Amino acid sequence: MSAIRYEHIKSCKQTGARLGIVHTPHGSFETPTFMPVGTMATVKTMSPEDLKELEAGIILSNTYHLWLRPGHDIIKEAGGLHKFMNWDRPILTDSGGFQVFSLSKFRRIEEEGVYFRNHINGDKLFLSPEKAMEIQNALGSDIMMAFDECPPYPAEEKYMRDSVERTTRWAERCIAAHARPHDQGLFGIVQGGEYEALRKQSAQDLVAMDFPGYAVGGLSVGEPKDVMNRVLEFTTPWLPADKPRYLMGVGSPDSLIDGAIRGIDMFDCVLPTRIARNGTLMTSEGRLVVKNAAYARDFGPLDPNCDCYVCKNYSRAYIRHLIKCEETFGIRLTTYHNLHFLINLMGQVRQAIKEDRLGDFREEFFEQYGFNQPNAKNF
Amino acid sequence: MSAIRYEHIKSCKQTGARLGIVHTPHGSFETPTFMPVGTMATVKTMSPEDLKELEAGIILSNTYHLWLRPGHDIIKEAGGLHKFMNWDRPILTDSGGFQVFSLSKFRRIEEEGVYFRNHINGDKLFLSPEKAMEIQNALGSDIMMAFDECPPYPAEEKYMRDSVERTTRWAERCIAAHARPHDQGLFGIVQGGEYEALRKQSAQDLVAMDFPGYAVGGLSVGEPKDVMNRVLEFTTPWLPADKPRYLMGVGSPDSLIDGAIRGIDMFDCVLPTRIARNGTLMTSEGRLVVKNAAYARDFGPLDPNCDCYVCKNYSRAYIRHLIKCEETFGIRLTTYHNLHFLINLMGQVRQAIKEDRLGDFREEFFEQYGFNQPNAKNF
Repeated sequence: MSAIRYEHIKSCKQTGARLGIVHTPHGSFETPTFMPVGTMATVKTMSPEDLKELEAGIILSNTYHLWLRPGHDIIKEAGGLHKFMNWDRPILTDSGGFQVFSLSKFRRIEEEGVYFRNHINGDKLFLSPEKAMEIQNALGSDIMMAFDECPPYPAEEKYMRDSVERTTRWAERCIAAHARPHDQGLFGIVQGGEYEALRKQSAQDLVAMDFPGYAVGGLSVGEPKDVMNRVLEFTTPWLPADKPRYLMGVGSPDSLIDGAIRGIDMFDCVLPTRIARNGTLMTSEGRLVVKNAAYARDFGPLDPNCDCYVCKNYSRAYIRHLIKCEETFGIRLTTYHNLHFLINLMGQVRQAIKEDRLGDFREEFFEQYGFNQPNAKNF
Repeated sequence: MSAIRYEHIKSCKQTGARLGIVHTPHGSFETPTFMPVGTMATVKTMSPEDLKELEAGIILSNTYHLWLRPGHDIIKEAGGLHKFMNWDRPILTDSGGFQVFSLSKFRRIEEEGVYFRNHINGDKLFLSPEKAMEIQNALGSDIMMAFDECPPYPAEEKYMRDSVERTTRWAERCIAAHARPHDQGLFGIVQGGEYEALRKQSAQDLVAMDFPGYAVGGLSVGEPKDVMNRVLEFTTPWLPADKPRYLMGVGSPDSLIDGAIRGIDMFDCVLPTRIARNGTLMTSEGRLVVKNAAYARDFGPLDPNCDCYVCKNYSRAYIRHLIKCEETFGIRLTTYHNLHFLINLMGQVRQAIKEDRLGDFREEFFEQYGFNQPNAKNF
């Protein structure tokens, strides 16, 4: 019996988007869902109570970062990541693969794993399928990710084929090394860049291994949005209908909708929390840079159409003041609002699926936010 | 009818410490009390809800800082400081006098006020009794402070006498300039350093002006603790029993108790919030520097005898990790705990007054925390 189970509720008759529930050892969450990112065992500035008030169903944390600080041995001794950070709902951990490729220096990819220098002090490190499983087993996340190679974009087909094949071999080693399959569900990651044949091959090879869930990796790495959508269109049909599907690293509102329409159930991204720390907001009026002088005497809420805690109680002028003065409470407020925006958006997406009108919702949303414009303000 | 009224409940038969209630336009708070400091219209990292959960009865904010950023005109337009920062309980604002003397450069004290350069960009500024009233009237705090000179410690008696006399003349100008006496109570500030005759003169002159409350200023500026205590002993007897008394800038636990014993009702200090940002905690076992390596695998609470939200839910190991990684949620947790420590301490002080045993409580507390030792770890 797998630790993770996907319950399909219905599909949208207009788009095919899936409404479902993912059941985990720490409770269930509805899909499609957006997962806030808690890199260092904290969603920056947020308390677990804040996240529950926001109705976050699951959060993501980073294997690479927790391996380096405080060390997975300490988190294991604490009784696991849930207890360590006081979060009793589901947690997904990535494999560290992405950080090794995006943050580290001097990496060398071998069949056994990746040799690299860490981004904090330059120490030599080695990450492999077995090590990524050891760390994630210590963390005790509900959903673990297989250790994969994240190839650059764009990449030659030959490079990509070698990479995908290695990722498949690594996935087999992950399954073999996973020590707690009854407590933690391990997801495979489909790679293959923009190459349809490679995505199909990757998906078929991984599905044959019968993971309890599948991710689509290697997207949101600089490719145009239509490439992302096309890749999803020729990839998700190869994934089993009775398992959850996770599009890694995607958090732009338009891409969340377009991903759901292509059969994706789970998303994560640092986007809402990262731009919040710079005072940039997702609002129903589009992108808002609250530090701008125009808001110095604007006593209205960040978003006039939002009913979140922040918009009910604080003005643009106050939040601008806090951010300008580098007061962390300002970042708490902008982070809260942006997470509310995306979590609330996913609630609207689920409602639209329920009503078989996600296609209409997409049109309305893209119209309101200007995503139909060729030079749409991108988040 | 003054905006501020002091209701005396009883005095401790063992020490003479006062139990009371201060009534303000934004509600009442019990005394003796500790006021968290919200310099920039926010108690750093805390939400108003956090402060209410901590049972903070009143907070302090800084005229000087709000004058510079965002500007008191903006806060006035917002409907006042309470509305601007979403805090509906009492607020006390200082006069800016202390910051002019502690932060600014090139200050020149004249009879009309103080010319100085601000600490942010060096701009020339001028602060006077009239300006301090104008700013505080715009902020709309419940308790305003008169604009005084904060003399250095130590200061010659001649210098101190001139300073005290000027502060008295400034106090008269403050009363004359105060535009909202029915909405906001203005407190006078007794100065005079360690000179008994000057403290007496200052107190008598100010009491003759019939302020709704009085502060003792110019302490906690580097003088030994026994000097502070002696000054309080020969100053508070000159203050009227039916008005609240505020000891400015004092937040060390031992000094809160010793101040209450000498008839003080209100205290403020950045100490608990400032040391929290460096990972230093006030605990029943004394000072705790949670960043120390000794706590890396310590899965117990910050304070085993504390029942605050932080101690109930988080470990030293987790908080150490957050602080080491410069995660603001760590500072949120340490700030919360330290404020709880002092606010809870004042609750214990009030209970001890109620039971006529504040002297005994002091002995027990000083023994437990080592404040009786000659080299007591100071906060």
